[in-house]
Amino acid sequence: MRKQKKTNASIYADAVDVLPGGVSRNTIFHKPYPHYVAGAKGCVVTDIDGVERVDFANNMASLIHGHAYPPIVEAVTKQLQIGTAYTLATEIEVRYAQHLTSRAPDFDKIRFVNSGTEAVMSMVKAARAFTGKSKIAKAEGSYNGTYDYVEVSQVSSPDNWGDIDRPNRNPLAYGTPQGVLDDVVVYPFNDIERTLALLDENADDIACVLIDPIPHRVGLFEATDEFVEAIYFWTRKNNALMVFDEVITFRTNYGGAQQNYRVKPDLTALGKMIGGGFPVGAFAGRSDVMSVMDPNENPLRLPHSGTFSANPITMTAGYVAMKDFDEQAVLDLNSMTAKAISQIRDAIRVADVPMSISGSGSMFRLHPRKTKPLSYRKAFQTPQEKTVMTKVLDHLFYKENIIMVNTGTCMFSTAIGQKEVDQLSQGMLNAFKAVGDELNKVYTETHLK
Amino acid sequence: MRKQKKTNASIYADAVDVLPGGVSRNTIFHKPYPHYVAGAKGCVVTDIDGVERVDFANNMASLIHGHAYPPIVEAVTKQLQIGTAYTLATEIEVRYAQHLTSRAPDFDKIRFVNSGTEAVMSMVKAARAFTGKSKIAKAEGSYNGTYDYVEVSQVSSPDNWGDIDRPNRNPLAYGTPQGVLDDVVVYPFNDIERTLALLDENADDIACVLIDPIPHRVGLFEATDEFVEAIYFWTRKNNALMVFDEVITFRTNYGGAQQNYRVKPDLTALGKMIGGGFPVGAFAGRSDVMSVMDPNENPLRLPHSGTFSANPITMTAGYVAMKDFDEQAVLDLNSMTAKAISQIRDAIRVADVPMSISGSGSMFRLHPRKTKPLSYRKAFQTPQEKTVMTKVLDHLFYKENIIMVNTGTCMFSTAIGQKEVDQLSQGMLNAFKAVGDELNKVYTETHLK
Repeated sequence: MRKQKKTNASIYADAVDVLPGGVSRNTIFHKPYPHYVAGAKGCVVTDIDGVERVDFANNMASLIHGHAYPPIVEAVTKQLQIGTAYTLATEIEVRYAQHLTSRAPDFDKIRFVNSGTEAVMSMVKAARAFTGKSKIAKAEGSYNGTYDYVEVSQVSSPDNWGDIDRPNRNPLAYGTPQGVLDDVVVYPFNDIERTLALLDENADDIACVLIDPIPHRVGLFEATDEFVEAIYFWTRKNNALMVFDEVITFRTNYGGAQQNYRVKPDLTALGKMIGGGFPVGAFAGRSDVMSVMDPNENPLRLPHSGTFSANPITMTAGYVAMKDFDEQAVLDLNSMTAKAISQIRDAIRVADVPMSISGSGSMFRLHPRKTKPLSYRKAFQTPQEKTVMTKVLDHLFYKENIIMVNTGTCMFSTAIGQKEVDQLSQGMLNAFKAVGDELNKVYTETHLK
Repeated sequence: MRKQKKTNASIYADAVDVLPGGVSRNTIFHKPYPHYVAGAKGCVVTDIDGVERVDFANNMASLIHGHAYPPIVEAVTKQLQIGTAYTLATEIEVRYAQHLTSRAPDFDKIRFVNSGTEAVMSMVKAARAFTGKSKIAKAEGSYNGTYDYVEVSQVSSPDNWGDIDRPNRNPLAYGTPQGVLDDVVVYPFNDIERTLALLDENADDIACVLIDPIPHRVGLFEATDEFVEAIYFWTRKNNALMVFDEVITFRTNYGGAQQNYRVKPDLTALGKMIGGGFPVGAFAGRSDVMSVMDPNENPLRLPHSGTFSANPITMTAGYVAMKDFDEQAVLDLNSMTAKAISQIRDAIRVADVPMSISGSGSMFRLHPRKTKPLSYRKAFQTPQEKTVMTKVLDHLFYKENIIMVNTGTCMFSTAIGQKEVDQLSQGMLNAFKAVGDELNKVYTETHLK
């Protein structure tokens, strides 16, 4: 029997039999089928059909040096020879902890877990254990992983988001317990007055206010200094913690997005790039708060373990990745990203399309409208807008061989150079021209009616 | 300046400055300091002080072939060259999904995540999304990961466990929301009459009954056929699911512990060994239930993704590990474990100590009493019993160079041979003799007073 050539379509035909919807992660789902990787190196990903694409998504922001970064390959190959996980400790977890805690002034102590989801969940539980209170506050529209509490109102839409003075608490999943909804306060990001009013109503019960300082799905714009300071001082007065989700945003500065603010979070969740391409999460912060997990304490307020937490492969890869993402590398990467944004702004002008760009550091997001939105509700896309944005992204993927995050976002890696930036901005120009009429039509119908 | 020789003690001295309690996982905490691994191969782990120990813990049951298993090292080294994670799919996740779903008749579809904690959490959420109900039932004393709901009554003790007819719902962590406790029914494992009575009281609200078929921390004994069948038929009648936590127990048979029962779970959580030594979790089960995550469905009842889920490193390592853990390998490993148990029973007789052994397949647990306990409350150890068990384990660790799980449990790997089994049983004999007087004293005081 002759072996048939494998294609994206043929593998997907097998996948649908054993994976729900044929995919392991809904983010990689793509109609008519997802694409299967044959190999990747630096900023180039080749699929099983032989198509090479430039990667501006980097596994949802997790590969700061692109694919198969030689120093990581070398270090991990060496570690593989002596094991990947033990029931004992390893020196590398200590050295990497020393490095990460040195990057931000309020990272007294750190604990590693296996994903951003686990990082945020553990951080919320630590805040509860420290304060003895149950409720959390989180921003309308923000994605903070798959722990039920932080999923509340993650995808609120005009038909269910309610009055902005008191955003509705919408479950993401069917069957979410009412108790989850009752214990979450949903605040409008960057809206000081409304947020403080909501917090005040729940002052006795709030363990922590969770802030992603540049929330991707809210719109990828920065929390204002005033907002962060208002939350900080509110939490000081009300026996609550201010905790940051920097799983994505830590890349924006040597010490994370928090470096930009005068006040610092009590705890910070990390993930993505700090694993050097391997599964990871972590949370770091104040010694007294982190001590809720210290097995020397009696009573131990937050018993906490994990089979693969701080495994030496992730620690080795992460340490190499982050040591090489030093202050100069951060500046260089941010500057390359700024160059890309500038060139894409030119493309927007030349194509004369209603498109704006938000972002910070080494990441930015396209919005199908003339002015950069500054709130979740302003950034929210109608089904028509989503459809036209998908056309832009599909043009980029299929015609220009460019991989972006499905929200219209780029997460740069240090493997990207001027050549790829030129390909990106030229590709954007082509996409804007190809989809320009529709972009203008949808914009007019949505915003000028 | 001369570089000081690194020791377990010197590394730990650095660790306490940056990690809460100086550890990344409380399970590896050891007084006066944890031990740091210099390297491992097969069943031998060498610490930084140069001491070689035989590993019967295998990173809490996650290394079915021991450390640095050559076929895994080879396959992962190859994959490393072409990347560790992408924003696209990979063929290996499909092939591995085909393999795993072929091992158990009711694994129609599977989804991968990053840890056992994520597997159980996602499985519970899938059960809620499918049934539209919120509550879960779980066994008193069972460990099912760190999702708050499944942590309820994980460490209940005589002072707080309440009446066996209605075990108390005890939070594990400080600050656990009351809503979590309200949505959990705690049942006494293997106690059909009491469990059904508790389930009946909550029949309208129960999304799933969670069963670990051989729960390690309950006492590592098997769920009876009658118990599993009673739960199965109750869930059929009450629009609920029966879901298994086989994160640890899947190793006991080619198709998991569920192979032993005539009725099968609707969903099963997996983890540990299926990652081949890398971070992993998964849940598998009925097509119609798993479709709650299918992105083709509208509405999508359980939006579900994960940055590192099904990453090609874990998939590659896991697939190699499980293909090589075929039906014959399972039989051989179980038979080697049975041999060990038999030799340890001889050691118990020779040393004349009150010690019994429970377990199944390739795992077993020591209990400091003459008869194997058959309930959580019978298996529960007093502080005196825990202290004397720690003395046995410390003797084994320090004097006999044997690593076991800190509950007195062994999780075998295929790297263990007759030589290591002899070392284990001889080590046990020595430990029993050394601690025998105390074992007898504690037993008399606890059980014969």
